[in-house]
Amino acid sequence: MKKNIGQVLALYPTPVVVVGTEVDGKVNWLLVAHVGIIGHDRIMLSMHKAHYTNQGVKAEGKVSVNMVDEAMLGRADYVGCVSGAKADKSGVFDWHPGEAGTPVIDESPLVMECEVVDNYETETFDNFICKITATYADENILNSKGKPDYNKLKPVLFEMPNYTYLRTGEEIAKCTTLGKEYKQENMQ
Amino acid sequence: MKKNIGQVLALYPTPVVVVGTEVDGKVNWLLVAHVGIIGHDRIMLSMHKAHYTNQGVKAEGKVSVNMVDEAMLGRADYVGCVSGAKADKSGVFDWHPGEAGTPVIDESPLVMECEVVDNYETETFDNFICKITATYADENILNSKGKPDYNKLKPVLFEMPNYTYLRTGEEIAKCTTLGKEYKQENMQ
Repeated sequence: MKKNIGQVLALYPTPVVVVGTEVDGKVNWLLVAHVGIIGHDRIMLSMHKAHYTNQGVKAEGKVSVNMVDEAMLGRADYVGCVSGAKADKSGVFDWHPGEAGTPVIDESPLVMECEVVDNYETETFDNFICKITATYADENILNSKGKPDYNKLKPVLFEMPNYTYLRTGEEIAKCTTLGKEYKQENMQ
Repeated sequence: MKKNIGQVLALYPTPVVVVGTEVDGKVNWLLVAHVGIIGHDRIMLSMHKAHYTNQGVKAEGKVSVNMVDEAMLGRADYVGCVSGAKADKSGVFDWHPGEAGTPVIDESPLVMECEVVDNYETETFDNFICKITATYADENILNSKGKPDYNKLKPVLFEMPNYTYLRTGEEIAKCTTLGKEYKQENMQ
């Protein structure tokens, strides 16, 4: 018998990212973990309207979405603790501009450069809808097919109820293999 | 030096869920892994318009969002392999109705019952925006504060580039602890 624990937002863990953009001509970083995937070509970044970074996202219309591994987590966590309105965070990460001019963090193992195509606004949040224009990856996190290997990349994950970072774990199975076994055993 | 691997949607892993609703008076299940979090009270379910389930979500205006652990993954994977238009999936999971009447899967360790408040429609996808009305959890996945313990729950995760299910890993740190250390060491 399950217990009703109230209206608990529990759809975790989610990958954390450092969102990079320029605000008033200076690079700024923000840690974001309320993210989403729309269809097969868009991502959503949910960012409270009070964030300094949102001004830059709206003005620039483009962002870098830098995935976070454990080695860079201290700095990533820091840029989530302090507002760009109070502290200059431009020097926290070394970076180079991507093809579209967004700041791509050198030590991030995988970075998506995005165009902001819409804002699904709610009362207190900007929910930026972004199309990926280029994806930059370190060669050592790619597999033999040239795709990201999530067990080499090992993105840091987030969960809100206990405000904790978690590791990405091992592979369980390829999708559809278990479902096909179930079908064979139960549906013939 | 990073390699540009093209417009790769790489913002993974994400938690997989079984979405439960009624279609034409019969319970139906669909596996969904393109999900998101909006602000602090809404979740987004991105579901291709061709899915049979979408009709039910639109007609009912409510869904159950059943988190998936490894024990139920075979059946969860199966309901992602076969369309409800072709197969009757109602008997795949045992369930009881939640307070709002959605089908809450007995063996899912945590289920959010949701009201569908909007549809952020794109060309080929319904992106259902849902408010959580109740959350049901097995007592054995709650910690001493009554919150979900993600290392007991161990949600199954998904990544698209290699079409693979992954485990939720261990805790790395509480949020803000590493950032505060970084600040103390570098910003004083």
